[in-house]
Amino acid sequence: MSEQGGTGRHGRNAGGGVSVSGIGEFGLIGKITARLSYGPTALLGPGDDAAVVTAPDGRVAASTDVLVDGRHFRRDWCSALDVGHKAAAANLADIAAMGATPTALLVALCMPADLETGWAEGLADGLSAEASSVGASVVGGDMSSSPTLTVAVTALGDLEGRPPVLRSGARPGDVLALAGRTGYAAAGLTVLTRGFRTPRVLVEAYRRPQVPYAAGPQAATLGATSMIDVSDGLLADLGHVATASGVAIDVRRDAFDVPRQMADAAQALGVDPYTWILAGGEDHALAATFPPAVALPAEWRPIGVVTHGAGVTVDGAPYDGPTGWDHFR
Amino acid sequence: MSEQGGTGRHGRNAGGGVSVSGIGEFGLIGKITARLSYGPTALLGPGDDAAVVTAPDGRVAASTDVLVDGRHFRRDWCSALDVGHKAAAANLADIAAMGATPTALLVALCMPADLETGWAEGLADGLSAEASSVGASVVGGDMSSSPTLTVAVTALGDLEGRPPVLRSGARPGDVLALAGRTGYAAAGLTVLTRGFRTPRVLVEAYRRPQVPYAAGPQAATLGATSMIDVSDGLLADLGHVATASGVAIDVRRDAFDVPRQMADAAQALGVDPYTWILAGGEDHALAATFPPAVALPAEWRPIGVVTHGAGVTVDGAPYDGPTGWDHFR
Repeated sequence: MSEQGGTGRHGRNAGGGVSVSGIGEFGLIGKITARLSYGPTALLGPGDDAAVVTAPDGRVAASTDVLVDGRHFRRDWCSALDVGHKAAAANLADIAAMGATPTALLVALCMPADLETGWAEGLADGLSAEASSVGASVVGGDMSSSPTLTVAVTALGDLEGRPPVLRSGARPGDVLALAGRTGYAAAGLTVLTRGFRTPRVLVEAYRRPQVPYAAGPQAATLGATSMIDVSDGLLADLGHVATASGVAIDVRRDAFDVPRQMADAAQALGVDPYTWILAGGEDHALAATFPPAVALPAEWRPIGVVTHGAGVTVDGAPYDGPTGWDHFR
Repeated sequence: MSEQGGTGRHGRNAGGGVSVSGIGEFGLIGKITARLSYGPTALLGPGDDAAVVTAPDGRVAASTDVLVDGRHFRRDWCSALDVGHKAAAANLADIAAMGATPTALLVALCMPADLETGWAEGLADGLSAEASSVGASVVGGDMSSSPTLTVAVTALGDLEGRPPVLRSGARPGDVLALAGRTGYAAAGLTVLTRGFRTPRVLVEAYRRPQVPYAAGPQAATLGATSMIDVSDGLLADLGHVATASGVAIDVRRDAFDVPRQMADAAQALGVDPYTWILAGGEDHALAATFPPAVALPAEWRPIGVVTHGAGVTVDGAPYDGPTGWDHFR
């Protein structure tokens, strides 16, 4: 696509490395696609007008998430590799939350012209590694110069013959269960915001979420009635399930242990750790509801119940802390 | 996804309209999804963790393109509706260029917090209208605040049982043919750049490309050996085909009539109109190669030949004008 206006021609950026404008669009695309690896779901990878991906059951699950520099990540807090993992995880978790297995990622990358090419390569490595960890591949993308570094990712997935698990299927009497962890990434962000770099387990959780991808298809197979990716904060995301399903959800606070390092950090920083656990996003845990007769495997920890009514409560009472995020406020 | 940092809380923007930060993320998502319409390919539209789209032959074609404010469009030259049409067309054309029929779009929209909500709604209307024109639907997306207005679109498509038509299949002896028009959008851009608003046919072509979508699957059915969406400029994009196929391509200049209004504008602006026709992008014509025995229908106009060798020539000689665009230079 042609462009109006233009950036200056910089062969090298301020750091002395080769900049994306120095190498040019096609040079950079070549360098990046050479770093990617392709699994069996990628029938045709980058390099043509479109990629071709398997969709064995005749449907494809598809989700898009965008990360903006300074809002969803900071380059002084996260390496390019981290941002790649993080961007991929945010999207792959959405696919898992439908009960689907991810197959492919496509990436639209907007970069300042003086960005070092190594940053784009690191990003590609992170995206590719996170995708590979679930058998998916980075199959395509686009790049443009932009004043604001932005990574928009689309993930595709295979429902493997099952119906998608929606947000709208929770029923009174269902058990609410959680796979994965909450509060770690939010605690890590608070730690970084206050100028610290440790505890590492929290900071690393913020940099690279550990997503229980396999628990998504597992929940679908077990008969989960609803499921959601916890990206905005547990209570905020359960609020989406409660609204979509026309039910009330109660979370038991004692279902959550506060891990020692989180407790220590909370004390040092003067924060209630349950604010992180109940309202922090970005760990990409999966929350699902199951009929009470379902025997839950170890991956799925009961944390509450679904009842008649509306809204989300904690131990039967409204929660009065912060509950989540709005991207424009 | 949670965010670091934040924008100010502005209920209204400078123009007096309601801003995206005033209405908030979920309010805006509600307003936008209410404007969309869904065709039969959209098994599940926006509102859950992922959409679900039909992929009847067990494969899905997928492509991503990003448009950046000030680089790919200017808000004083294009309405939000225009940008929606343009962003959708750029992606849908990539799907058509594989010989596939588009099924769905997903959109990642990054917006300054003071952008009027009406702009986002207009964009959604344009995306949805362009998608609907080919039977596809806007099935999902994401939004974030960002200093730079950016529209990243992913298109999905159905290959309908045919092999994808690649860039790499052109063979010496093939006929090169074109569906759609070239030079109109580039001429329109030059007109706007020089401060004029007419001829309307050129300016409108720049604002909303007229893409011959149906010619893509038609070419695949006819046995096209290669195909590409002309987005960077005819000669530049044919260069990709020549390289991928290991062939030379010669274009006949006399295959192109210069339409009267383009000739008039070229004369008034002191431009060689063949610069627009041979090197201008953004009309999203489709260029394909066919075995010489194929009887081409009216949609496909022969414009050259494939030969042994390398590179692209015009009337047998190297072309010494500008040939295309690099997004970082």
